[in-house]
Order: sequence, then structure tokens, then C-alpha cells
Amino acid sequence: MFDIIASGNITSVSGFLAGAVHAGIKSKDELDLAILCSEVTCKATGVFTTNQIKSAPVVLSQRHISKGRGQAIVVNSGCANACTGEQGLMDAMAMANLAAAKLGISPEKVLVASTGVIGVPLPMDRIRAAIPGIKPTQKGGHDFCRAIMTTDTKPKEIAIRVDSNEGQFTVGGVAKGAGMIHPGMATMLCFVTTDAMVSADFLRAALHSAVDCSFNMISVDGDTSPSDCVLLLANGLAGNELLDFDNGDAFQQALITVCTHLAKSVARDGEGATKLIEVTVERAEDEVWARQAARTVASSPLVKAAIHGNDPNWGRIVAALGRSGARVREERLDVYLNEVCVMKQGSFSPCNKADIVSSLTSRDVVLIKLCLNLGDGKATAWGCDLSEEYVTINSAYTT
Amino acid sequence: MFDIIASGNITSVSGFLAGAVHAGIKSKDELDLAILCSEVTCKATGVFTTNQIKSAPVVLSQRHISKGRGQAIVVNSGCANACTGEQGLMDAMAMANLAAAKLGISPEKVLVASTGVIGVPLPMDRIRAAIPGIKPTQKGGHDFCRAIMTTDTKPKEIAIRVDSNEGQFTVGGVAKGAGMIHPGMATMLCFVTTDAMVSADFLRAALHSAVDCSFNMISVDGDTSPSDCVLLLANGLAGNELLDFDNGDAFQQALITVCTHLAKSVARDGEGATKLIEVTVERAEDEVWARQAARTVASSPLVKAAIHGNDPNWGRIVAALGRSGARVREERLDVYLNEVCVMKQGSFSPCNKADIVSSLTSRDVVLIKLCLNLGDGKATAWGCDLSEEYVTINSAYTT
Repeated sequence: MFDIIASGNITSVSGFLAGAVHAGIKSKDELDLAILCSEVTCKATGVFTTNQIKSAPVVLSQRHISKGRGQAIVVNSGCANACTGEQGLMDAMAMANLAAAKLGISPEKVLVASTGVIGVPLPMDRIRAAIPGIKPTQKGGHDFCRAIMTTDTKPKEIAIRVDSNEGQFTVGGVAKGAGMIHPGMATMLCFVTTDAMVSADFLRAALHSAVDCSFNMISVDGDTSPSDCVLLLANGLAGNELLDFDNGDAFQQALITVCTHLAKSVARDGEGATKLIEVTVERAEDEVWARQAARTVASSPLVKAAIHGNDPNWGRIVAALGRSGARVREERLDVYLNEVCVMKQGSFSPCNKADIVSSLTSRDVVLIKLCLNLGDGKATAWGCDLSEEYVTINSAYTT
Repeated sequence: MFDIIASGNITSVSGFLAGAVHAGIKSKDELDLAILCSEVTCKATGVFTTNQIKSAPVVLSQRHISKGRGQAIVVNSGCANACTGEQGLMDAMAMANLAAAKLGISPEKVLVASTGVIGVPLPMDRIRAAIPGIKPTQKGGHDFCRAIMTTDTKPKEIAIRVDSNEGQFTVGGVAKGAGMIHPGMATMLCFVTTDAMVSADFLRAALHSAVDCSFNMISVDGDTSPSDCVLLLANGLAGNELLDFDNGDAFQQALITVCTHLAKSVARDGEGATKLIEVTVERAEDEVWARQAARTVASSPLVKAAIHGNDPNWGRIVAALGRSGARVREERLDVYLNEVCVMKQGSFSPCNKADIVSSLTSRDVVLIKLCLNLGDGKATAWGCDLSEEYVTINSAYTT
């Protein structure tokens, strides 16, 4: 029912255009300023950071999206425009105004996002000079994706075509990582496009559900960014039957697929990471605790460092579980590492350590399963290993 | 009123003896098994890990200390005896029995602690063979300190002599770090001795107060260990006036001094650390939030990595504060880095970046002060920088 579109991205969806330029916000000669827009006004919804320090673009986009409408997103990398006071908010508004003028739409329909260093003002002269030169096209999705990258090593994008009883539609998405990733509500930046016709209430609920089981279940380093946001634009051009709570299953699943793909890409490409860690907690007391336990294990620096060294130090997994807050009864606990049972009912389970080391070494996805045997709660979280490279990247980011 | 005793430690206190041997629990030829004992029965109290996975020695020591009495502590490094099921508890009891037989006291007066790898059973044959060879003496405090070290690079010990209106007494302490440090209630292992005569209720309250502003305010890596405990033995041999809530100020301050010294030593010697980070939060809404905010900033991997690189990336400090849960109003926030104001009322404060980099580079203690300007809450937390070495140590701990 889902088809992943080869090399698909946000402009694989009807009626969406994108373009990007190098404005000189980043010192390297890389794309750093981009616009995504729809040919027609969209229903729009978003999920924003829970950090009490919110970047100026987050404050502005929350304001603009509050009426449920939007038509374009202007984004820069290289500077987060966070902790920049009143000037920051004026700069974010100026970005929206410049993009609106360029596209011939009203500024209230423009959402703004910025990512990069915190505490430094935007170089508005460069942005002002560069925006008119951005040429949004149907082929521009990939350039947009590259323009929002900071320490990301790989682009993160996807599009899927859905053929459902309610008609055909497409969902595309793009995201960027790669540090300060422990979304309290959303990840750094993610933009989702769709041509599906969807009721406003359902659109909002569907995005929250999708974010909850995807971006809210990843962690690179436990730090939640003031810039986090996931924005969804739905232009309704697909001509499908209007989707709502009673007939929106396929859309919900498509959104979960897109968000989960992007969230896992962000975790896998965490700063310095060499492996994706997938932690599944089963039979927890309830789902809330299962989520908490899975995220705690996936975020533990000691678990992450052990995985980096292909060290089956499962005691650290259990220690992280024990501090997660989830109820644990040691004598019921089973632990699996890459499908091998290493702990059964709270005690060491005889297993061949050399085999586990070899399986950890040869795979770039490490599976940790914790079966608590207490209830029906289940959840999966994703993280990445902790490498020397993470420290190297982050010990000289602004200098 | 306080005198720090030169090269003082737990056996600088009247009536306490200690000794240690190499039993072969660690592979290296290092001390790894030790006994601390008092000539007479002590009032005893302890603070233990909040991790739901508790090591067998923690379970046993909680049981033995429940009557408020103790006379000896037997400790090993190299194996935590955690996640070892029923066998682990039997082994911890055997350790207590062996030490009790050696000392000629009842096993209920013996407390047990173990630190090292989780999930591996204790080599009881080696412990059984080694305990009779331990010779506790008045000079044994430093050997005891070395015997409990794992990845610690430096011994952590102190003793202070107190001359108060209620009489003279001495307080000594020893602790070990250096990873899995984010005490939920206590740190890895800390043992405090005193010859003061103290009422049982006050002794318990005083230890909790001291731990709350010392060990509970440090973090190396955010992971809380199943082995955490702080144990305090008070043998009453000093002949001072009985100390209680109404006359115990000097004792309380002495205990805070000892615990804070040891806690800062643990943070400073965190795995791979090169710097101590001291985070002070002032004028928070209340003390609870001040504590939470200070700990969150001191634990942020991004702040820690920036400090490692002498990078004055204060945006990360503010981002960590913003996700701490403490109420923050950006427009009231002042931030100081090594006494230089880098943010004033939420905006970048003009300062010489080169000067800050130079002060970060030249000092091994970095001071971060956050003034929230919202209320009277104040707290200080300690952490350490995050280095490539931390990852190297922790990616091959069991292999």
C-alpha cells in the first residue's frame, strides 16, 4: 500500500517547490539558505521544542501557524538565531517578510526555522542579499535538504506514495540532526509535505502521534535544542477523499513511516556515530514507562560507549534501566543483545561472549531488547554509539 | 575551627583501623580487597542508590544498617556483585561472615560494598583466601583508599579535626569515582568515619543533609550506579558532649566539608576529565529548581565537550538550562563564564572572546554562574569536561 519513491523528497509531492543558495552564513562554501513553498495555501501544523529557551524562529513560527495555515518555509543553517533577544525576533520576522515578498504571498503564511550556533545574531545583510536569488523548483527538494545540514554527514529525506481506499496521495519529509538531539517534543528540524486533503484537527493529531513514536524516541546526546520543530504542510492537491479521524489510518501510517525513517536517520547520523542502537522494551508496566525505559537505555553514555567498542557490557544496560524510573523486578528481567539472551530472570544467562562481540562488530545496527515481564507496555527508542569523534566535534564548535 | 589534617584519612580518626590486600579480583597487581573497622561498636547510618537495580552488597548493607549499628566495612573493587541474583546475595553474606570471623565480631555489624564490573559473580575463592591476610592498622587508611579505586586516577580522602564548644572530634572520609557517576542519593562508594558522640537521629539527618549538597550535586556521565552508597560510622570515642539537632552545627558543617571535598574530588577525577566544572545557579524560583538547573548544566554533554575544548559556547549552557525544567525568563537571565558576563538580560553581552578562551585554557576549574533573577533559590553543582579519553575508557571496559 506504500511505495517508497526512489530518491524521493519533499518536492516529490504535487505542488511543492524548493530551492537553496549559499548566502555565506556558514563559512564553508555550502548551501545554507533555502525556501520550501506550495503552489497553494496549505493546512499547516507543527510540533515545537519543550525547551523554555525558544529560538526566535520557533516563537515566530508558533505565532504564524496558530491559525492552521501556511504556504512556505524559509530556513537557514549556520546560525540558530536563539538567545538573541528582541533583535532575534525582528530578524526572524524580516526573514519571513523577505521570503513573502519574493513569493508574492503574505508574511503570515511563511514559517521560519534556523539551525546552528546559539547566541549569535543572524547576518541579515547576507540573508537580505541572498533570498531574491533562491529559485524554488520541483527538483529543489534535495538542495533544500543539503542546505539545512550542519554537522550531519548524510542527507535525510524520503517520500512515499500511498494508495488507499480514500484515494492516492504522497507524503515527503526532510530532517537534519546531528547534535543537541534529545527531542522533548520534536527534533532539530523536520519538514513534512503532503498533497493529501486532511481535516485540520486530524492533521494536528496525526502529526503528534507520528512524532511521539519517532522523533520523541530518539536521542543523540540528551540535550534538547531550543530550535526543535517539526512542521507539516498539507496542500490538498491529491484529490483524495477528505481524511479525518474515521478514515485516516493510511495517512497516519504513512506519516509514522516518514517520521520514523527520518528519526532513525537522525539517530544513525548522530555526531560521531558509527552505529544505530535500537532499544525495545517489552512487557513493561505500561507504555509510558516502556517509553521512558527505552529512551533512558538508548541515551546512557556508558551503554553508548560500550556499544562503540563492541563491548557486550550488559550490566550497563541493566543499570540504565534501573535508573529510568520504570518499575523493574530484577528477578523477572530478561535481556537480549542482538537476539542473544544475556540475562534470564535477573541472572547471567550462559552465552558465548566471543559470538556476541563478533555480532556487535559486524553489524551497524545493534538491537537491545529488555523484557520486564510485568505488564503490556511496549516501546522502541533509537540512539547511536558514543565515539571519541563526538567529543572532538563538540569541543571546538564555535572556536 | 576546622583543621584539615595533613595526609589525613579515615584512620586519622581515633579508634578506626584499616587494611587492604591484593586478592586477585582485579587482573592488575593492585590492592582490591579492604577492611575498615572500629575498636568499638559504632552508630551507623547510610545513604544508598535510588537505582531500582541494587547490587547485592547494597541490599545486604541496607539490611545490616537498619538497626543503626555497625563496626566494620569490607569492600572489594574489580567486581560490583550487581545483577548476580541469589548467588550474589549469598556471596555478599559470605563476605560479611568472613570479615566478621576475622575480626571476632557478629556478621550483622559488618557492612559490605563492591565496585567494578556489573553482571559478573565475585571470585569467592580468592576473597575467602585473602580476607584472613588483611591486617587493619591505624596507618591503613590510605591503603584502604587505594583498594577501592577502579578507573580513578587519584586517591580521594580527607580528615578534619574540629574544635567546637561541644568538644573536639575528628571526621575522616574516603570515596571512589570515576564513571557511572550521577548519584541519585549517594555516590559510587564513600565511607565516613568519626569519633564524635552523636545521637542516632541527628547522625542520620546530618548525613542526608551533607550528601544532598555534595554527592547529590555531582555528575560525571549521568548514569546512576546500582552500587552507590555513603556509609558513616561514628564510634563516639572523642569524649565530646553528645551532639544532637540543637548543638550539632559544627558536626554538620564538618560533615558537609568532608562530603563536599570528596564529591568535588570525584567530579574532578571523572573518567577522562581534565577540568572541574562548578555551576552555580542564583536567584532561581526556589532551591529545588536551582539544584535541578545546576545539575542539568553540569551534566550536559555539549557543555562538557565545549569546556574540554576551551570553547566559550555559552549558547549550550543556556540551552541546557532551558531544558532543565526550572522556570527561566530569557529576558531576565544573566550568564557568567569564569566571572565574565557573557549574557545580560537574555542578550549577548559584549565581551572579549579571546580573553575568555585564554581564561578557560589556563584554569583547571571552570566557573559557570547563572543568575535567573526570579527568586531566592541557590545551588551549586559540580561536573567535569567530556574528553575523547572518556569514550576510550568506556568503549572497552569489560573486553
